[in-house]
Parts: sequence; structure tokens; C-alpha cells
Amino acid sequence: MKELQEYQKIVENKIHELDLPKEPANLYDPLRYFLKLGGKRTRPSLTMLGCSLFNVPGIKAFNAALAVELFHNFTLIHDDIMDEAPLRRGQQTVHQKWDTNIGILSGDVLFVEAYDHLSKYEGQVLPQLLRIFSRTARQVCEGQQLDMDFETQDVVSIPSYIEMIRLKTSVLLGAALEMGATVAQAGEKDTQNLYDFGVNIGLAFQLQDDLLDVYADPEKFGKQVGGDILANKKTYLLLKAFERASEEQRTILSDSMALANGDEKITAVKRMFAALNVREDAEREKKRFYETAIKHLEAIDVPSQQKETLIGLADFIMARDH
Amino acid sequence: MKELQEYQKIVENKIHELDLPKEPANLYDPLRYFLKLGGKRTRPSLTMLGCSLFNVPGIKAFNAALAVELFHNFTLIHDDIMDEAPLRRGQQTVHQKWDTNIGILSGDVLFVEAYDHLSKYEGQVLPQLLRIFSRTARQVCEGQQLDMDFETQDVVSIPSYIEMIRLKTSVLLGAALEMGATVAQAGEKDTQNLYDFGVNIGLAFQLQDDLLDVYADPEKFGKQVGGDILANKKTYLLLKAFERASEEQRTILSDSMALANGDEKITAVKRMFAALNVREDAEREKKRFYETAIKHLEAIDVPSQQKETLIGLADFIMARDH
Repeated sequence: MKELQEYQKIVENKIHELDLPKEPANLYDPLRYFLKLGGKRTRPSLTMLGCSLFNVPGIKAFNAALAVELFHNFTLIHDDIMDEAPLRRGQQTVHQKWDTNIGILSGDVLFVEAYDHLSKYEGQVLPQLLRIFSRTARQVCEGQQLDMDFETQDVVSIPSYIEMIRLKTSVLLGAALEMGATVAQAGEKDTQNLYDFGVNIGLAFQLQDDLLDVYADPEKFGKQVGGDILANKKTYLLLKAFERASEEQRTILSDSMALANGDEKITAVKRMFAALNVREDAEREKKRFYETAIKHLEAIDVPSQQKETLIGLADFIMARDH
Repeated sequence: MKELQEYQKIVENKIHELDLPKEPANLYDPLRYFLKLGGKRTRPSLTMLGCSLFNVPGIKAFNAALAVELFHNFTLIHDDIMDEAPLRRGQQTVHQKWDTNIGILSGDVLFVEAYDHLSKYEGQVLPQLLRIFSRTARQVCEGQQLDMDFETQDVVSIPSYIEMIRLKTSVLLGAALEMGATVAQAGEKDTQNLYDFGVNIGLAFQLQDDLLDVYADPEKFGKQVGGDILANKKTYLLLKAFERASEEQRTILSDSMALANGDEKITAVKRMFAALNVREDAEREKKRFYETAIKHLEAIDVPSQQKETLIGLADFIMARDH
């Protein structure tokens, strides 16, 4: 995991060194603020690892990595507005600290910064990176829209939910790796397997997210435990619970969700999750995606010791507590 | 102007043929709706004209032109949210017809579409186009931020105002032409002069916008005449009026702006504009930018008959009534 930590450190430093203009302060201060809230820099590290996997120094993929990280932060700023989220990484969100307009606009300019880092590549790599990046950005928007659509739908099937999280979260992890492989000019089949590894890890990652929201240690979590329950968010756990519940249990679950007192609501919904064993389902589904991911990684035609860091990263993602 | 009309028609057709996905409908329907509201397609036509000026068929710049037009529409969707505008081209804005979240997100995905059209270029043209496009997109965001900042500032100088409209409006017209010249691989000096032509036409264009808001024919205008006055928007006219007013006139102007009845407010503010002759100033300033633009166009090293369409377009922009 030494290589991973090295890349995370490089990204962190480069993020802090980003030469954003001073003025207009209301446009760029929010970005300086938000980009320094931290985060594990997982996605950009994946890009560098996806490059070094094919014996090309990871640092060559650094600008693509930064594009991925800046894009990710852009989506967070806009998502926080749409979700009316007050906190991000335990700190005020941009629209909360400034206002919604500043959140929209500073997000927009961050998206420009992301694309701008791609234009540092030349030759055939540039159009290839652009195609991956735009395709992925479009999918992430689609995923966010589906997520919002689900809020007003009575019934959402588990497959629809998986498709939504695939778009909203997972394709970016796949694309981060794919962009690294593209900088390294890896073969088509290996690049595809690396992408599929990332997407499946991403799906596992998102199920872990759903699990953490309910079962995380509040001290480590950095945001409110049970937030999804309070917001009536259709997570894997909730959808599975409704799918499995008897008519009577469904009524109890609906009544629990209608409780006005937040703590009581969380406790009551968690009680139903326990009665219906949905935590176990989510854990099993997460493991299934993890194993699919590893299969794709194994299929890549490079010596297995070169894959160790990626396996380590996958394990790191699976075991995260915040 | 035959060439211009031809390009406008090509852009209009291509916009209608854009193959946007069907689903999620809440993401792409707003784009289909908004892109068909029309508009004069001035900016993309400039891109094609900027290419054909250097004896390269304008159609070669078509994808760059579409990128410019899609970017412009993206900024309109987000600006309409920020400005809380109910109408655009006489029709409901996206956030009004759907909601703010859909406005944010469909704007974001339109921005992706814009960049995506650039990636159809190859070789050295692609990174050059990307650099122009990203630089310009960043400036347009800066201009919008300055515009919002001005709302809460007591005093805004005329030079600050000109800088704001240069960023918010004019650089995109310059960049539209520059991108056309880049596709044609024109010389550096010619490309710069073409850019400066566009920026100065853009400044004239924006002053015309300020003038139209107050003095347009309501039937042709397509949005509310006097809207800037009602919103206390710091336009060239208002800033000039405050700059020139005596202490007594300043009080009258402030009192006029404080009137609760909209029609009375518009009438009273217009009366002060007339007393202070600010319409004449705006017209003179507009003419000055127009003449600077023409000087830059004249300096470009191509036969003058090839410049006729651009001169025609400049005149068209100057004379527009909506």
C-alpha cells in the first residue's frame, strides 16, 4: 500500500498547490475551501495506479488523476445543493457557507478546471481521455437524476437501484482506472477488465455507503448516522426491507418512517431492518460485487504482484468506516 | 449575409438533430425543450464564419460551433436559476417549468455535451480548441460572479462594469471566432485580431442589451421591458446615471428605484435617464466598441470581400431589436 499512500500524498499536495485565481473571491474562495476539506483522494489514486499497473510511472497520469478528483468535487458541490445537505466531511457545504448561486457557479468553474487538466495530454491520448471523461460525466449526471427521480416514486426495484448507483458512483471509479490505463496505452481487453474491476468495486463501495449510514460509528463517520433514514432515502436497505416485508411489516415500516421524532424514527426503522435481515443482504451483495471485481482484476495480463496495491485499495474501500 | 443565414440554418438543424438520450426524461427533456426555444444562433455562426474567413469551409468548424452554442445554452440555464428569471425567449425557463435541481443538473450535462463536441477534432487542433474553450468558460463564470457581486455593492465603476460584461458576454463571441480560426489554422496575429473583433462586438452587443431592456419595443422584445430597472440591476445606464447625477438628482433616482409600483418605478427611472442623457452615452460607447471591432477586422490579412459577412453580422447585432 506504499504506492497508494504515495499517490494520495501527491494528489493532496497538488490539490493544495492548485493555482486558482484570487478574484472574484466569491467564485474561487469556495473552491479553495472545499478542495481542502480533504477526503481520501481515492479516485485520483486509482488513476495513477491504473497507469503504473502497466509499467508506466503513475505520475504520468497525474493530470488525468487531478481531472477526476476535481470532477468528483464538482459533483459533490452540486449534489449538496440538490440534496440540501448542510455538512460535507463534517464541515459546512459550499451553498450553506456561501449561498446556492455561489454553489452552482463555483461548481461550474470547477468542472472547467477538471477538463482543463485533460488538455495537458497530447497525441491520441487526449481524445481518448476526453471520450472516457465526457461519457462518465454524462453517466454521473444521469445517476444523480435517477436518484432524485426515485425520491418521488412509490416503488423502486433493486435492479433499478443498482443501475442508479452504478451510474452515480461506480462508473467514475471504473473511469478513473481506465484513464490511467489509457495514459499507459494499455491493450483494449486489459483496459476493459480494469474498468470492470473499478465499476464493481464502486458498487461494493456504494453498498458500504448505505451500510455505513445506518451502522457506522458516529465518532468516525463525520456526518449524521441515520441521515438516509431521516430523509426517507431509498437505499438498498430500505428497498430490500420493503421487498421482503409482509403486508403487516410493511405497515409497521411505513409508520416508523412517518415518526416525527428523528431519534425514534431511526431506532424504529433500524428495528425493522434487523427483523428483516436486510443488513446481511447488503453485506452479501457487497461481497458479490467485490468478488466480481477481483475476477476482472485477475484477468488482466500483468504479473500478479503488480496488482497487489489495487487489491489492497479494494480491501481498504471495503473496510472503510467513514 | 447569405453565408450567415446558411450557417444559422445548419446550426438550427443540427441542434434539432442532436441525439440526446430519452432517459432519464427529467434530465434530457429540459434540454430538448430549451435548445428548441430558438435564438439567433449567432455565436456558432461566428465560429463557422471565423473558419471560412481563412478559406477553409465553415462546415469544418461545425462541431466547434455546436460546442459554443451548447455552452452558451448551459450558461443561460444556470444564469436563469441564479437570476430567478421566469422567462427566456418568451417561454418558461427550465427551473420554472421543472425545478431548480433539474435546472442545475440538466445544465451540467449540457456542459458535458459541449465539451464532447470538441473531442471530434484531432491532432494539434484539439488541444488548441480545448484551451480556448476552457479559458473562455472560466471567464464567463467569473463574469457571472462579478455580476452577482455587483448586486450587493453600493458603488460600481463604469470600468468595472465594462470588465464584467467583457467576461460575462464578450469573450465568448471572441472565442467563437477564435475557435473557427483555429480550425482553419490561421496565423497567430490574424487569430488575435479576429478575437479582438469579436470581443469588441460583444461589448457593443451587451450595451445594446442594456439599451433594449429599457427602450425596446415590447412586442418584439420577448421579455419584460424595464426588467433590469425593476430588478435594480446595475446596467451601464443606471451606473452612468448615478455617476453623472447631482446630489439632488441622486436622491430622486434612489427614490424612484424605491417605488413599490412597477410601472411607476420604470417610468420614474426612465425619466431620470432622460434628464441625465445616459442613453446617448450608452449609444456612443456602443459605437466606440463597434469601431474598434471593425479596426481589428480590417487588420486581418485576407481580401476585404471575404470580411463582408462578418461586417454584415456586426451590423445585424448592432441593429437587433430583441
